[in-house]
Amino acid sequence: MGSFDLEGIFAPIPTPFEGDAISFTRLAENVTRWNATRLAGLVVLGSNGEFVLLDEGEKEALVARVRELAEPAKKVVAGTGCESTRATVRLTKAAAGAGADAVLVITPHYYKGAMTEAALERYYKDVAEQSPVPVLLYNMPRSTGLNLTPGLAARLAAHPNIVGIKDSGGDIAQIAEIVRTVPDGFRVFAGSAGFLLAALAVGAVGGTLALANIAPDQCCDVFDHWRAGRTEEARRLQLRLLPANRAVTARWGVAGLKAAMDMLGYFGGLPRAPLQPLEEPERLELRRILAEARLL
Amino acid sequence: MGSFDLEGIFAPIPTPFEGDAISFTRLAENVTRWNATRLAGLVVLGSNGEFVLLDEGEKEALVARVRELAEPAKKVVAGTGCESTRATVRLTKAAAGAGADAVLVITPHYYKGAMTEAALERYYKDVAEQSPVPVLLYNMPRSTGLNLTPGLAARLAAHPNIVGIKDSGGDIAQIAEIVRTVPDGFRVFAGSAGFLLAALAVGAVGGTLALANIAPDQCCDVFDHWRAGRTEEARRLQLRLLPANRAVTARWGVAGLKAAMDMLGYFGGLPRAPLQPLEEPERLELRRILAEARLL
Amino acid sequence: MGSFDLEGIFAPIPTPFEGDAISFTRLAENVTRWNATRLAGLVVLGSNGEFVLLDEGEKEALVARVRELAEPAKKVVAGTGCESTRATVRLTKAAAGAGADAVLVITPHYYKGAMTEAALERYYKDVAEQSPVPVLLYNMPRSTGLNLTPGLAARLAAHPNIVGIKDSGGDIAQIAEIVRTVPDGFRVFAGSAGFLLAALAVGAVGGTLALANIAPDQCCDVFDHWRAGRTEEARRLQLRLLPANRAVTARWGVAGLKAAMDMLGYFGGLPRAPLQPLEEPERLELRRILAEARLL
Amino acid sequence: MGSFDLEGIFAPIPTPFEGDAISFTRLAENVTRWNATRLAGLVVLGSNGEFVLLDEGEKEALVARVRELAEPAKKVVAGTGCESTRATVRLTKAAAGAGADAVLVITPHYYKGAMTEAALERYYKDVAEQSPVPVLLYNMPRSTGLNLTPGLAARLAAHPNIVGIKDSGGDIAQIAEIVRTVPDGFRVFAGSAGFLLAALAVGAVGGTLALANIAPDQCCDVFDHWRAGRTEEARRLQLRLLPANRAVTARWGVAGLKAAMDMLGYFGGLPRAPLQPLEEPERLELRRILAEARLL
Repeated sequence: MGSFDLEGIFAPIPTPFEGDAISFTRLAENVTRWNATRLAGLVVLGSNGEFVLLDEGEKEALVARVRELAEPAKKVVAGTGCESTRATVRLTKAAAGAGADAVLVITPHYYKGAMTEAALERYYKDVAEQSPVPVLLYNMPRSTGLNLTPGLAARLAAHPNIVGIKDSGGDIAQIAEIVRTVPDGFRVFAGSAGFLLAALAVGAVGGTLALANIAPDQCCDVFDHWRAGRTEEARRLQLRLLPANRAVTARWGVAGLKAAMDMLGYFGGLPRAPLQPLEEPERLELRRILAEARLL
Repeated sequence: MGSFDLEGIFAPIPTPFEGDAISFTRLAENVTRWNATRLAGLVVLGSNGEFVLLDEGEKEALVARVRELAEPAKKVVAGTGCESTRATVRLTKAAAGAGADAVLVITPHYYKGAMTEAALERYYKDVAEQSPVPVLLYNMPRSTGLNLTPGLAARLAAHPNIVGIKDSGGDIAQIAEIVRTVPDGFRVFAGSAGFLLAALAVGAVGGTLALANIAPDQCCDVFDHWRAGRTEEARRLQLRLLPANRAVTARWGVAGLKAAMDMLGYFGGLPRAPLQPLEEPERLELRRILAEARLL
Repeated sequence: MGSFDLEGIFAPIPTPFEGDAISFTRLAENVTRWNATRLAGLVVLGSNGEFVLLDEGEKEALVARVRELAEPAKKVVAGTGCESTRATVRLTKAAAGAGADAVLVITPHYYKGAMTEAALERYYKDVAEQSPVPVLLYNMPRSTGLNLTPGLAARLAAHPNIVGIKDSGGDIAQIAEIVRTVPDGFRVFAGSAGFLLAALAVGAVGGTLALANIAPDQCCDVFDHWRAGRTEEARRLQLRLLPANRAVTARWGVAGLKAAMDMLGYFGGLPRAPLQPLEEPERLELRRILAEARLL
Repeated sequence: MGSFDLEGIFAPIPTPFEGDAISFTRLAENVTRWNATRLAGLVVLGSNGEFVLLDEGEKEALVARVRELAEPAKKVVAGTGCESTRATVRLTKAAAGAGADAVLVITPHYYKGAMTEAALERYYKDVAEQSPVPVLLYNMPRSTGLNLTPGLAARLAAHPNIVGIKDSGGDIAQIAEIVRTVPDGFRVFAGSAGFLLAALAVGAVGGTLALANIAPDQCCDVFDHWRAGRTEEARRLQLRLLPANRAVTARWGVAGLKAAMDMLGYFGGLPRAPLQPLEEPERLELRRILAEARLL
């Protein structure tokens, strides 16, 4: 892990479908475009990748293919969290075998009442012990109904194979508290472009951002402006990106992201059912938002 | 469906593990005992069955085995809800092929923001169209963070292959509203023994109750007392069962249920990780609760 | 307290305004009508009475006037809960002095994080010690964001001057648990007509129901049917009342209740700002609902 | 309003009690100390001022006294939000008459379901029309259970007498969205020191911070570092202040703040009931936290 380098902007990529199946051709087209950006890497099998809607075989194939398609300098992180410890470990090993540089592991959450800090700590340690690659924690309260607390994050950060966290909760005081309490070198990533600059301001080292799929340069600009001390430029760009970010996250989710990709020259296509595509009035509104953000 | 008969008390059975694998031997021991009760049937692959922690192959094998083990007069209902429509349909067909009398389909929920009433309506209709057996809706807000509204339930109840609902939310005004608005013959089941009597009072036809695993006779007594007009006996028994019910649901969940089964002569065993078994002080407290409920 | 009798259906009456002031004339008209019903009593200064929008002087005058107007056999309960203990005690003494038979005391809630069970226990005991009349607990989570737990209710029920609870939360398992754990004679009231029958089924002795303002006879019929063992009649009426109840509670609140009163021959009038009256389309919908419930 | 200047760090001061009454002597001692700091001003009758526990006469007296005690260069902002429009207007006029430079008006919230955006817009405009001094919006979801949305804030910001907002919700993407959509010159304040730096990074002009009562210099240092481009110094100090901030806000609230004041040479004293003072073990923990933050 000494040479393990993980910071900057990552795109949690959507999974392209044609008909009922994953289209690896469309995937290749998209990755080729992302290869030409300053993105630090790609996250496959994240929430935007519709990971809960994929079969186990599809998941493994996707990781392998993305690793092949991404240029070597791009990190590939695979979302391997499942509800059971054994399924998570199995998928983690498969992802590592398929070339993932790290895995991103969401909190199990169906049995919320039973997911005490002790249970989650045991879970993450069991996974980390058996993972051939470094583990990133993934806190996604909007979907899971659970919060991975700073206290737990700090305890887990002491494990040598747990190297960072993606916090999508947006509670910036919590993100700051995590930065304050974890060891140096533990990487904190903003989980949404809505609070990218704020997270950087308190010590995050990057972001894993749905918006980075469709606005990779602009997301990287926020990061670069901040790093270079151009705080006012960073702030202006951060504000300008807010509506587009909201459109592809809280407001319209994966369906919005895929529609935006179609508008911007990527392949988006349809989400898998039960997710439904945007209706026409929503598409018009989305187009207007992308234009105002100067993405279109 | 004319002759389809579904009412009374069902036990959503836990899945017995030995080591890392399902123990079909232990399962047989348990089912043999439930066969000797007045239970109307068994629900396999419900929340108490740790369905989200099982592999697809395990799920199919379980349904088949439970159908073989359960005496013919007992209905067998299989929980087949997955996050994707296609996985739900696939498992539904497999469960029907394995002999399930009906399927119980939980609301998909990872993408909560996208699970509008329209999306859920489409989902359930797609599943119902393709299901060889009748479909029961499953509302479980505590785990899913979503509520299946009475309005949606009423619309879905118009579908000929959607025949009932298990509502575990415990909002009794909602349960009453569902009873009020669905067609005659649509079956409303209480999803927890905590509100069994209340649900019967407003028109539910039964319950699918974690507690029925360990107190099948008492749960059936509440039902029978109510049906026979012995409201005061029903009420007294309902009250007495509350702490035991809470112990095996909201308080300690599956781990509590399995511990109670071990105490009562069933096989409970360990839950699958990341679920953790009860600690010793919790077991002592549980034993006390079971004794006070006169179950032990 | 030996002879203190409190059960049956209570109406938490709205406060009639003309212009900016309370109209005691309109109040008298309304009370005269309620006097002619089977209502057990009236609750003044409840949530439906817009108590948080009234000045202290208005509150005291209202209690006195309602006590004068209500026929002697009707109990008058005054809502005297304020955020500070001292204001609650002051208003409680004033209400008792003005003739209230009992007071209904809501949980203080602005400082939710500080309202631990210990703090609430101290609060209620302080109030009960100083109250010249019996105290009823008032649990109203929808407005307060706090739940008064069964455990706390049971501890408070041991105090000789705390004689009952109005639970508006609608968690019927909680209501049952309260009934189970309080001493005999501690009175549990349903806080909404949406779960009146369910609450009676588990042991409540009555209800304090917004709906009772506009449908006193029907609410009393549910109660009387239940007491007489006519469970099916009670059930049918309970179901029929659900939409009207929802219209004057969760859906349109005080504004809906006042509009319904105007439609049914009572004086409703405008709520006090910032509450806004119903718009015309809402009134049409309300009229339809009242007609379907056979109230209009 | 042309010359109205409002930015920087404000302390929402606690109300000192001795026995049952406000101690104006203790108040004077505290204000004398705050006068010697770089604080931009004081907020009286805020959440930390226990405003919901004060009588109307106490409120008016407090504003007048604080205005007299604060040195002329310090702004004095009065929290005047009540549940009813008329009480808010009355108190707003009284506060302006007593010398308040501006008023801070919390969202009415008891009738949450009725507090639609339209109702809140009408409320704030009614208050702003009648207020002799500028109005600041106050969003405090933790206490109110309501969120004042960016869309509503933007509409209200168009009113000439509504000049800013204190947002205590801590959703930094929302704070950024407010900054993005309000007119230039509309002042956005962080409502807690937990997200002060993050709020400044997206364009806030200051903070109204419980922590500023006990750490005025450090809070001003965060602000000054940021303004001077010393982002790393700002960040380090922000992180260091987190536990102390949490101790006097989310964790122990007003009781924690008052205990900390006593430890740091201010007068804190007891909160008013039903608020309870810290227990001894909590005081020890608080002392440790203050020491680690180098405040003690």
